[in-house]
Amino acid sequence: MRTRGVLHHDTEVTVPFFDVDSINVVWHGHYVKYLEIARCALLDRIGYNYAQMKESGYVWPVIDLQLRYVQAASFGQTLRVRADLIEWRNRLKIHYLVSDANSGERLTRASTVQVAVNLADGAMQLVSPQIMVDAVEKHLA
Amino acid sequence: MRTRGVLHHDTEVTVPFFDVDSINVVWHGHYVKYLEIARCALLDRIGYNYAQMKESGYVWPVIDLQLRYVQAASFGQTLRVRADLIEWRNRLKIHYLVSDANSGERLTRASTVQVAVNLADGAMQLVSPQIMVDAVEKHLA
Amino acid sequence: MRTRGVLHHDTEVTVPFFDVDSINVVWHGHYVKYLEIARCALLDRIGYNYAQMKESGYVWPVIDLQLRYVQAASFGQTLRVRADLIEWRNRLKIHYLVSDANSGERLTRASTVQVAVNLADGAMQLVSPQIMVDAVEKHLA
Amino acid sequence: MRTRGVLHHDTEVTVPFFDVDSINVVWHGHYVKYLEIARCALLDRIGYNYAQMKESGYVWPVIDLQLRYVQAASFGQTLRVRADLIEWRNRLKIHYLVSDANSGERLTRASTVQVAVNLADGAMQLVSPQIMVDAVEKHLA
Repeated sequence: MRTRGVLHHDTEVTVPFFDVDSINVVWHGHYVKYLEIARCALLDRIGYNYAQMKESGYVWPVIDLQLRYVQAASFGQTLRVRADLIEWRNRLKIHYLVSDANSGERLTRASTVQVAVNLADGAMQLVSPQIMVDAVEKHLA
Repeated sequence: MRTRGVLHHDTEVTVPFFDVDSINVVWHGHYVKYLEIARCALLDRIGYNYAQMKESGYVWPVIDLQLRYVQAASFGQTLRVRADLIEWRNRLKIHYLVSDANSGERLTRASTVQVAVNLADGAMQLVSPQIMVDAVEKHLA
Repeated sequence: MRTRGVLHHDTEVTVPFFDVDSINVVWHGHYVKYLEIARCALLDRIGYNYAQMKESGYVWPVIDLQLRYVQAASFGQTLRVRADLIEWRNRLKIHYLVSDANSGERLTRASTVQVAVNLADGAMQLVSPQIMVDAVEKHLA
Repeated sequence: MRTRGVLHHDTEVTVPFFDVDSINVVWHGHYVKYLEIARCALLDRIGYNYAQMKESGYVWPVIDLQLRYVQAASFGQTLRVRADLIEWRNRLKIHYLVSDANSGERLTRASTVQVAVNLADGAMQLVSPQIMVDAVEKHLA
């Protein structure tokens, strides 16, 4: 899960009290929320976010999710979530690195894979809709 | 919040690990989930549940929520959530009593108020749709 | 739930995708999270936050929670949560107003009541520990 | 993620309203909760659950989590979560299969890896504490 993407975006998340478990660390499942917050920020930046996906006639469900936890995070800690765009032509693959915003210490790595599904007929797309490719290429240009 | 309703339903919920906070008790916000699980079970019994509400052309958003916490709950504890139907003719008012399923000790009291909103035009209804009244009266008969 | 407090703090929260339900609005239970984020920011400002509470030998469980929902919120909307300090001498009472950060439209009102519990013996305190009173008075001075 | 374990346990979970997103399916992050419910049930059966782990002086944080989503789940659907014990001597590896409880249709596959951390000194254990090995072997005998 180490590859750097063609473009990336950093988002900060401060750990709320209600995400911390009885071991005094962020419960492992809550990171999925942090990833989505970072992914949405990356997609906003690319100009093809969830709302724009829906307008274009597609939803992009997550079909694969992987997380590797290295260090725990705790209440009040400010996390930096770096989201790297890895693939976009056939499916949307994003890598994530969650680190401490102050020290830079690496806490968690993750990846998600999403594919486009046509809202009209529910068909999974084997290649990304052109609007996604255009949005990325426009951003890279 | 003590009135007993014309009908009630008991639901059991076992506290999962991820609902417990760093003080080792259920985080207060998670009880809203337990209430909805109990409410859905009560509405299933009445025969006018969320799916049936939508089919009938209405959604019933919660407009008022009150919780009074007496005793904390902990990981693995089995809770009984009693949902009492208090009002249904103009709005849907339900009272809840969360207690320990084994000892019967009372832990939390709550109430919710919901009103019907017409899906077609978004208009809040000042009286309950007849289908709700009929469902309750049929059940009480 | 309309009283203004002796001091208040505004916090912004952007509605994440995972807080929105199948009716396309924020599920009512998620507001409890927004309240706590605003409450923690207010307590940070007063100088007696959750960590400082624990260091001082107390936890402050929520014993009463009330929410009144006026307008729904949706994905991506930026909310302003105003937290007003109402009482602090015997118990901690905070009022909340959730509004749209751009239009100022009022969406939800809420209140919470917390009481101090001594960590050493688990005893609920009938008056607030002096450290709370001092923190508020220092801030007001 | 297909290997069957030396022992397994099935748990049923009914999808609550608040786990369903604006696309009308279970938000992908909520499956992490279903996995933990199934894992806790499996560990209860083995006789070395979270409470017993803590009593024995260890916590077992999840260090790796993988999910592969095949079919979506919806509100009210009853899911069967099969948890298979794959490894336990050095680390705890569990595979999961989430399927529709009625039709048996396969919805999601997942795996988690946990390692023992000594509560006394925070040291990650390279082999499982004997109590884990004994619990599994006693159950298999």
